[in-house]
Amino acid sequence: MIITLKRKATKQEENKVIEKIKKLGYIPHISRGVDITIIGMIGELAEKYRDLFESMDEVDHISEIEKPYKLASREFKHDDTIIKLPYGIKIGGKKVPIIAGPCAIESKSVLDEIAKIVKAGGGTILRGGAYKPRSSPYTFQGLGEKGLKFLHDVGLKYKIPTISEAMSVEQVPLVSKYCDIVQIGARNIQNYDLLKACGKQKKPVLLKRGMATTIKEWLLSAEYILSQGNYNVMLCERGIRTFETATRFTLDLNAIPVVKKLTHLPVVLDPSHGIGIREHVPTMAKACLAVGADAIALEIHPRPEEALSDGAQSLLPDQYKKLVADLKRIAEALDREI
Amino acid sequence: MIITLKRKATKQEENKVIEKIKKLGYIPHISRGVDITIIGMIGELAEKYRDLFESMDEVDHISEIEKPYKLASREFKHDDTIIKLPYGIKIGGKKVPIIAGPCAIESKSVLDEIAKIVKAGGGTILRGGAYKPRSSPYTFQGLGEKGLKFLHDVGLKYKIPTISEAMSVEQVPLVSKYCDIVQIGARNIQNYDLLKACGKQKKPVLLKRGMATTIKEWLLSAEYILSQGNYNVMLCERGIRTFETATRFTLDLNAIPVVKKLTHLPVVLDPSHGIGIREHVPTMAKACLAVGADAIALEIHPRPEEALSDGAQSLLPDQYKKLVADLKRIAEALDREI
Amino acid sequence: MIITLKRKATKQEENKVIEKIKKLGYIPHISRGVDITIIGMIGELAEKYRDLFESMDEVDHISEIEKPYKLASREFKHDDTIIKLPYGIKIGGKKVPIIAGPCAIESKSVLDEIAKIVKAGGGTILRGGAYKPRSSPYTFQGLGEKGLKFLHDVGLKYKIPTISEAMSVEQVPLVSKYCDIVQIGARNIQNYDLLKACGKQKKPVLLKRGMATTIKEWLLSAEYILSQGNYNVMLCERGIRTFETATRFTLDLNAIPVVKKLTHLPVVLDPSHGIGIREHVPTMAKACLAVGADAIALEIHPRPEEALSDGAQSLLPDQYKKLVADLKRIAEALDREI
Amino acid sequence: MIITLKRKATKQEENKVIEKIKKLGYIPHISRGVDITIIGMIGELAEKYRDLFESMDEVDHISEIEKPYKLASREFKHDDTIIKLPYGIKIGGKKVPIIAGPCAIESKSVLDEIAKIVKAGGGTILRGGAYKPRSSPYTFQGLGEKGLKFLHDVGLKYKIPTISEAMSVEQVPLVSKYCDIVQIGARNIQNYDLLKACGKQKKPVLLKRGMATTIKEWLLSAEYILSQGNYNVMLCERGIRTFETATRFTLDLNAIPVVKKLTHLPVVLDPSHGIGIREHVPTMAKACLAVGADAIALEIHPRPEEALSDGAQSLLPDQYKKLVADLKRIAEALDREI
Repeated sequence: MIITLKRKATKQEENKVIEKIKKLGYIPHISRGVDITIIGMIGELAEKYRDLFESMDEVDHISEIEKPYKLASREFKHDDTIIKLPYGIKIGGKKVPIIAGPCAIESKSVLDEIAKIVKAGGGTILRGGAYKPRSSPYTFQGLGEKGLKFLHDVGLKYKIPTISEAMSVEQVPLVSKYCDIVQIGARNIQNYDLLKACGKQKKPVLLKRGMATTIKEWLLSAEYILSQGNYNVMLCERGIRTFETATRFTLDLNAIPVVKKLTHLPVVLDPSHGIGIREHVPTMAKACLAVGADAIALEIHPRPEEALSDGAQSLLPDQYKKLVADLKRIAEALDREI
Repeated sequence: MIITLKRKATKQEENKVIEKIKKLGYIPHISRGVDITIIGMIGELAEKYRDLFESMDEVDHISEIEKPYKLASREFKHDDTIIKLPYGIKIGGKKVPIIAGPCAIESKSVLDEIAKIVKAGGGTILRGGAYKPRSSPYTFQGLGEKGLKFLHDVGLKYKIPTISEAMSVEQVPLVSKYCDIVQIGARNIQNYDLLKACGKQKKPVLLKRGMATTIKEWLLSAEYILSQGNYNVMLCERGIRTFETATRFTLDLNAIPVVKKLTHLPVVLDPSHGIGIREHVPTMAKACLAVGADAIALEIHPRPEEALSDGAQSLLPDQYKKLVADLKRIAEALDREI
Repeated sequence: MIITLKRKATKQEENKVIEKIKKLGYIPHISRGVDITIIGMIGELAEKYRDLFESMDEVDHISEIEKPYKLASREFKHDDTIIKLPYGIKIGGKKVPIIAGPCAIESKSVLDEIAKIVKAGGGTILRGGAYKPRSSPYTFQGLGEKGLKFLHDVGLKYKIPTISEAMSVEQVPLVSKYCDIVQIGARNIQNYDLLKACGKQKKPVLLKRGMATTIKEWLLSAEYILSQGNYNVMLCERGIRTFETATRFTLDLNAIPVVKKLTHLPVVLDPSHGIGIREHVPTMAKACLAVGADAIALEIHPRPEEALSDGAQSLLPDQYKKLVADLKRIAEALDREI
Repeated sequence: MIITLKRKATKQEENKVIEKIKKLGYIPHISRGVDITIIGMIGELAEKYRDLFESMDEVDHISEIEKPYKLASREFKHDDTIIKLPYGIKIGGKKVPIIAGPCAIESKSVLDEIAKIVKAGGGTILRGGAYKPRSSPYTFQGLGEKGLKFLHDVGLKYKIPTISEAMSVEQVPLVSKYCDIVQIGARNIQNYDLLKACGKQKKPVLLKRGMATTIKEWLLSAEYILSQGNYNVMLCERGIRTFETATRFTLDLNAIPVVKKLTHLPVVLDPSHGIGIREHVPTMAKACLAVGADAIALEIHPRPEEALSDGAQSLLPDQYKKLVADLKRIAEALDREI
């Protein structure tokens, strides 16, 4: 349930409510507006304490959220969440950052080469996989911690925030240590221990929708992270699985306005995985911007034929540069900025 | 197979080839470029006559198309097909016409009221269903020919081309008589007799993709129309059926760049049916424009709560007006025009 | 709404109610039990006449059916519908007829050869397509009326009822004239004019579920036929389209117990189309029997490599014979009979 | 690649080949037949050592497997894998064990009550979840290790092997310690670290197919377990996600004959999750048996309305008893045994 404190409640009054919540064994989730503070007290049996809080002087009113996800809902937090990253980059506001980089980190020199292209072309966040979820146990599985170190060093050199995927609970502290955003991949959308581990560390989390995940399940998976106290979660659509095989997945752009109405969390779009065909990525990236993306993730590689993973969908440097320039023009017409 | 005539072949030389094709029992499909004319001779056993044509002086060379659709393919016709409608409207070029109107024609006065809104708001083609494919036999099935007459009269009054759906072979001549475009609905995508009937009349045809139709099957259904000699076919994506139930269908925008590479036919997008939720139609319409739509179809209604069909997805007049204005700005950034 | 007459109502009393329904412009749908007769009066506004009928002496009570399909529902007719065919064959009871034959009728001699195998192997209904719905306009489209005549003659010779598909309104009277069952294919599940045409003729109809048709839509399509007065409709599951491409379709056996609970209509299963791989058809046929099929449809061909259509899924004569023998044993364990 | 030793190779000769494989840094996978031993040497670059092994006297010939999964393929091991469990229970042979129990373990007394019913009704393996993957973080998540202990004790008391799910790497040693089979749930089908952890412990593993997992991906996930040296893997189909919402999932019975042809691993079927509607579970269980299940998993509960999870699909004790009796009759007709 959501406890709305009376207007202009003092810090002391706020603490009184928070302490009571903690004493009952719940975690208080606090959201402070200009005049009003609301506190979420969420859990299977929270509602039975409703009377207890309703009778407190500090409390204005109590409301219940019918949706199975609570902290992720617009009912809990009306305004868009804006996630702050190093170097002044933000996700969730008027500006739409471009997240770009290789699918997998292959070597420090290739990563450095790509980072330079990313930055020069207008990208503001550097991506690169150190742990790669591969359907076959016999294909390249990533450089591991060594790759994360490369990403960290190259990010520092080019002053660009970084993102990389954690595939297991043990990898979370490593990715969290070296990177600015921890990514959860589509295959782990319902790996609940991993979600909880991400919720317990402090870095923002990018949560990719699974290939057969409904919008409701996606928000419930986000709720797993939020419920541990980490509110900096962004959702990422990267394509669902349908009967159509002409494209790698079906990028579900329909989901974006629906999700943005249900939740305050920013939504990132990944056209590279969504269509999986290099020459069509720019067209889809434009549609992603038009549909309301808060950030766009692109795979780029200077020599895709040598890439150790997903070469077929990686943009060439020149395609990338032209695309970002095109996106800048379109963003303006949409009252946004790249 | 595709017979390419030698450069600057005369009308007489062309006829010699055409006559030979006809004598063998095939229909010649002619596509004239600036300098070069190519003639399609298509059918299950056409290839066995290859030598015969290769040896003619008028012929430059013969090529075979591996794809199961021939006339619909870029191999047969490289340049985009541009479909010409009354009042100077074209589908397939730089301009992106807005097709707007009610789902079903309810009365002449309501249609007139809507047509005025469509025209004033920047729309250039008037839609309205006279025959409605309804899953239940007990719900409103449309006004029939009376509705077509209303559409015809209102179209004339506002000088705006019109489009309406034919659901059966018998309805084709009626829709063809009263309207400027004959629409085939998603449920009839593999109603082959209906496709052939549309191929035999002269009006342009809009062919909606079925809810479980692959891109390949969609183009093969277009081929059924083209193979009867009507080359003015436009494809229309209106949403596929997936596991996601938060939206009515999943608008498959991924399909657009793929289809536009495979075929020269223009592609229309229908965000109203695709998402099925009024408030999200404008966002999706913008994505449709960005992804390369050659026309955008919108349902509008001044009083959706009174609409006899699909009220939940019909835009209100003000939403429509604002949307078209927004689309104009975005079109410019995409080097297109509304 | 459903009008239940008082117990043991006379023919005269029944007629009084029927006449009133007709005068109001509705078609009465009559279902006679041992003691009780119920009459369906169905249509968009039927419920407004409820009081009028409730006050009649002949009427016991009125009930409304909430489901969008009425005549197809168990609420309208509790007992299983049993469809009677020539030569004493029935579909819907304890016995499970085997429908077998080629995908397409190719010639009279091949059909004769196959009919002999069908009969000798234990099959009781002969199938064969004269009109073939093909996704490409350039492939074999069936022998047409000539094929229907072959089927009729061969059926007579071997004293076996026959079934063939009608793809368009014009073909319905022809199929109805030559065959004992009119088949509607999966692609025409929402070709409403075709459904109505089948509802107006007298022969039983087999209605195949479309590849993306929900159970509700399937029953609504059956309702289109029933609402025209033809109550001898059987449903046929033949595979839905999913993300899995290792099989041609996904045979939705889950749907069978669900559908059989909702409707009194018999359900036929078509494992040949459902999986599309010859060697796996027998295994799937056994599962079809176990899941409650009222008839099983099989494609067979003595020389599949020469078949003009769907050779890859046709059983060889020996496979067919062994399968029917196996099914007989399993049927017994299920308290049914082949 | 697959190294086939010469017929009747001695243990010493075998060791020579094994040592060479180990020295090159690969894990040898050994499969011994009556006369012939074959050794898998698998990994991204194994093929480059082909010549080296081909020239050894101990080696008869080398073959490569084109499929992306190797150890799971029929090419690597032709005969069906039979998994041996305590109390003489086997999965993969003529006998089809019934795996039954509650969805979640709720208390020792309820589990004991259910185990008695399972055993008395003919079930041979006891299931029960101690760790429950739940889409909402706010619903019952299972009793954890305490639940595993209950399962262990009750299994001992009734002399029945047990199975429970591990959701994370840390839970694997616990489930492995207390239970006879470690289950991987559908949501973790591509949780590769979890798969590897299961491959490193010794207990048999039941691997559930994910709701959008292709057959190929399913076998590749099995390969992750096999590649770590644990060959006792059974696959479990429990329903895929499709457009149909009348049932919880679509149980993909089509997949069973296809999978059984590709792999030697036994296949378990779970009709309870697949359809999710209690009254239809018995019908689906019969179809599962007919389609070739090597074991059938059923949820049962004496008071489903009190169950903490999945009550709607749990069979009542009497339904369960009758079902097993029915299955025994059908099994006989299929030349199998319950």
